[in-house]
Amino acid sequence: MNDITGALLIGSRDIATERRFRAVDPASGAVLEPAFADAGPGEVAQAAALAAEAAPLYRAITPEARAAFLDAIAANIEAIGDELTARAAQETGLPAARLTGERARTTGQLRLFAGWVRAGGADEPRLDSPLPERAPLPRADLRMRHIGIGPVAVFGASNFPLAFSVAGGDTASALAAGCPVIVKGHPAHPGTSELVGRAIRAAVSDAGLPEGVFSLLTGTSNELGGALVADPRIKAVGFTGSRAGGLALCRIAAGRPEPIPVYAEMSSINPVFLLPGALNARAEALATGFVGSLTMGAGQFCTNPGLIIALAGGGLDRFIAAAATHVSSAAAATMLTPGIAGAYARGVATLEERADVAEVAHGNEGGPNSCRATLFVAEAAVFLSEPVLSHEVFGASSLVVRCADAGEMRAVARALEGQLTATLHLEPEDHALAAALLPILEDKAGRILANGWPTGVEVCHAMVHGGPFPATSDPRSTSVGTLAIRRFLRPVCYQDLPEALLPAAVQAGNPLGLPRLVDGKPETDGDARP
Amino acid sequence: MNDITGALLIGSRDIATERRFRAVDPASGAVLEPAFADAGPGEVAQAAALAAEAAPLYRAITPEARAAFLDAIAANIEAIGDELTARAAQETGLPAARLTGERARTTGQLRLFAGWVRAGGADEPRLDSPLPERAPLPRADLRMRHIGIGPVAVFGASNFPLAFSVAGGDTASALAAGCPVIVKGHPAHPGTSELVGRAIRAAVSDAGLPEGVFSLLTGTSNELGGALVADPRIKAVGFTGSRAGGLALCRIAAGRPEPIPVYAEMSSINPVFLLPGALNARAEALATGFVGSLTMGAGQFCTNPGLIIALAGGGLDRFIAAAATHVSSAAAATMLTPGIAGAYARGVATLEERADVAEVAHGNEGGPNSCRATLFVAEAAVFLSEPVLSHEVFGASSLVVRCADAGEMRAVARALEGQLTATLHLEPEDHALAAALLPILEDKAGRILANGWPTGVEVCHAMVHGGPFPATSDPRSTSVGTLAIRRFLRPVCYQDLPEALLPAAVQAGNPLGLPRLVDGKPETDGDARP
Repeated sequence: MNDITGALLIGSRDIATERRFRAVDPASGAVLEPAFADAGPGEVAQAAALAAEAAPLYRAITPEARAAFLDAIAANIEAIGDELTARAAQETGLPAARLTGERARTTGQLRLFAGWVRAGGADEPRLDSPLPERAPLPRADLRMRHIGIGPVAVFGASNFPLAFSVAGGDTASALAAGCPVIVKGHPAHPGTSELVGRAIRAAVSDAGLPEGVFSLLTGTSNELGGALVADPRIKAVGFTGSRAGGLALCRIAAGRPEPIPVYAEMSSINPVFLLPGALNARAEALATGFVGSLTMGAGQFCTNPGLIIALAGGGLDRFIAAAATHVSSAAAATMLTPGIAGAYARGVATLEERADVAEVAHGNEGGPNSCRATLFVAEAAVFLSEPVLSHEVFGASSLVVRCADAGEMRAVARALEGQLTATLHLEPEDHALAAALLPILEDKAGRILANGWPTGVEVCHAMVHGGPFPATSDPRSTSVGTLAIRRFLRPVCYQDLPEALLPAAVQAGNPLGLPRLVDGKPETDGDARP
Repeated sequence: MNDITGALLIGSRDIATERRFRAVDPASGAVLEPAFADAGPGEVAQAAALAAEAAPLYRAITPEARAAFLDAIAANIEAIGDELTARAAQETGLPAARLTGERARTTGQLRLFAGWVRAGGADEPRLDSPLPERAPLPRADLRMRHIGIGPVAVFGASNFPLAFSVAGGDTASALAAGCPVIVKGHPAHPGTSELVGRAIRAAVSDAGLPEGVFSLLTGTSNELGGALVADPRIKAVGFTGSRAGGLALCRIAAGRPEPIPVYAEMSSINPVFLLPGALNARAEALATGFVGSLTMGAGQFCTNPGLIIALAGGGLDRFIAAAATHVSSAAAATMLTPGIAGAYARGVATLEERADVAEVAHGNEGGPNSCRATLFVAEAAVFLSEPVLSHEVFGASSLVVRCADAGEMRAVARALEGQLTATLHLEPEDHALAAALLPILEDKAGRILANGWPTGVEVCHAMVHGGPFPATSDPRSTSVGTLAIRRFLRPVCYQDLPEALLPAAVQAGNPLGLPRLVDGKPETDGDARP
């Protein structure tokens, strides 16, 4: 049995505050014990001081030591046992099976980053050979590696209490990069956060790392997050949440005396293009797949398919009819928080009130804070003239946009804001239309799918869970997959440093065995380095 | 003979404006012909429209085609002949030999990026194999590559009229990344800019590329630069210049409805630590090397050594005495513009007026707009309590900070702002002190040198010309060397796309012959891709 005490975890210390808050079971509205510390600027300063002290020590450990630390976090999370998923279910209303899967995703993610660090994915060293005889000027001995950017603030997301929270993707990639992490736990699941936080803290201690490598602050105030992003010792921010929240953090970060990068994943409606051949071949099957993706997890995924785009015609009519049937019989599902359920209801109501948008189906009513799936249809001309129809309604609501022709479909694609994903359902006869859409979609989305559904984000090397604004605040990276490590790294070059002072990653003989570029080419055993 | 017409180069068209301006020869104050168009928001909109149109077409050409285009630009710049360096010398006051070297650096840089693009440095493809049998869920076929982020605005720098200007590092890396470029030429060298701009335009036309791949806007107003950064079609910005200028662009970029990255290289005083062993062994030789680096090019380098840090003692006294002698006999040199010369004189006067800073030497007086080298000394306690002593004085002025002991030296290191470079002069007996300084300097600088001088930035794979704020606005990258290409790229993932629709970089059989990661490991010929 692991204790949930309600304390903040600031380095190795448990810290209480006078102000406290409690979590709520969204399925029943019941208030959950215990009370949790509600951190503020004072606690931010304590955690940031420890993180700054830890940063140069932590980034100096070997890749193997860092990887073993990530592996230990994964093992410690598993060792919590069923208490973790049980508490997470209470705090989020998510079903146990989903949370068991999410735990596996979380530990798998930590282990993937461990392997990537071992493989040299953090350091990416490059060496350029000295050319002492070069005229008119010799070339120095230049060696570059990447180091952690410094302490990183990670904001836990509401919708993935494990995989995008305390030990989620941002924490895993920042720790893998060699950066201390201060997590601002999401106030909707503080008990889950504390359990995972203690698992990380134990790994810090067992590895003999400086305590400031990890702190967990829970709290309910915007002031807490603002103080964290404003603290001069914080060097980068990872955030998953609302557009308003992400933009607020971006403004704070940009307004600092020293601006810092914010990786905010914010808002995406994940357009799905149903091309004519696919609709003709399998409108009903598409409707089944679509409603499954739409209603999974009460639609509370960043990659939820909130927009369907298709050409008017019999195929689309069949799709809408079948989708309406499925939506009508969809069970209500508890949403993560009363706030999210309220925002969903308001978003749906806004569309229901419009004369130019037709509500073709809605799902069953449910208990408190539940999500009733809803399907709308609008003409492309309406969609193109009403920007509000592009706004995300977080939950199981989707809008079908009916296009008169391929030109209008391309116009809809061009009018889209930045997205995490864009999907094409197509048959070979649709390739010409798809080829015309692809360059537009590459400008709009981080991931382009064919004949699938955007929910389900594989944690791997080739994944991009990112995209142009407002899907994220920075389209140059991803929040899922090993490429995410680059978010929290910066390159440092060493010119003519004596061997005795060089970091191991760029020393002669490659003592860490990392893949390195020498004069722009992969290093081979035959490369003689002085 | 190449014509300098004074026109803006907007795609393939020469555009004149009613408002015009002329360049000035800083050595004589003479106004130079012809008059140049002074672009404003209207011209920005024209260039941006063409760039946005060109972007998807340009990024779709093969790496080989993009590399050949970069090579052609280099050849066209060489073909301009001596007219280019002669005009640049007139407009900047820089000596012909320096400009000849800078031209070679510029063309070498374009060719290095061409080679890097051929080697796959832009695409960095990654493929993860599908796992159709995996339980509980199969893994899709995931393939990722990098594409150009979109049209890039490049601000030419005053101090490198070729290598950091119209066809400079930012332009080369952005074009290499597959991004159209709009250059805002520096108004101090508009004739040089036009000559180089026409060389790029000819390469665009000869390669059959869309005209919007390149435009050159010259002008004198802040409004021009502001309109360029604010234009919604611009997706990233490269800038080299003053801290005030860079921060102004960052604010505009952060305040856009869609914020974009700004890579601004702004301000660095490039601290040089003279450790005791080195001072004892070779104080006079260090002084010679220092003053050579300080006065080169009238000190108008981002990497100019503006700060010397050493322990008090006989070695430092010898260094100061020898450096004072060299500075006293240093010839005056014409600065780039009357504005820069005026700012230098004011910066020096501010230090001269202080009772707590000693002026130990100054160089000879010169003609109009010339720089008189100046050397100051202050105690570390003064430096630590007076932030103004850390401000860059752009030109051949440097401050020696005398430390009482190694602890004070580390305190000075910790008090530094972010820097492009930090330098250690050391002997083996200094290694312990150097090892204690290194983790501090890694936090402060992009490049750490031993026993050299920071001026002279090699264009290669391992170079980092960047660093923490305020050296740059983004410490995650470099403005010199092949790593710079990552500034202008974003990853896109393709999930289960039919082979016929996949970009060549991620197709089966690797038709472009790029280095690729397959399941996290370098692809080998034996990797069978379906």
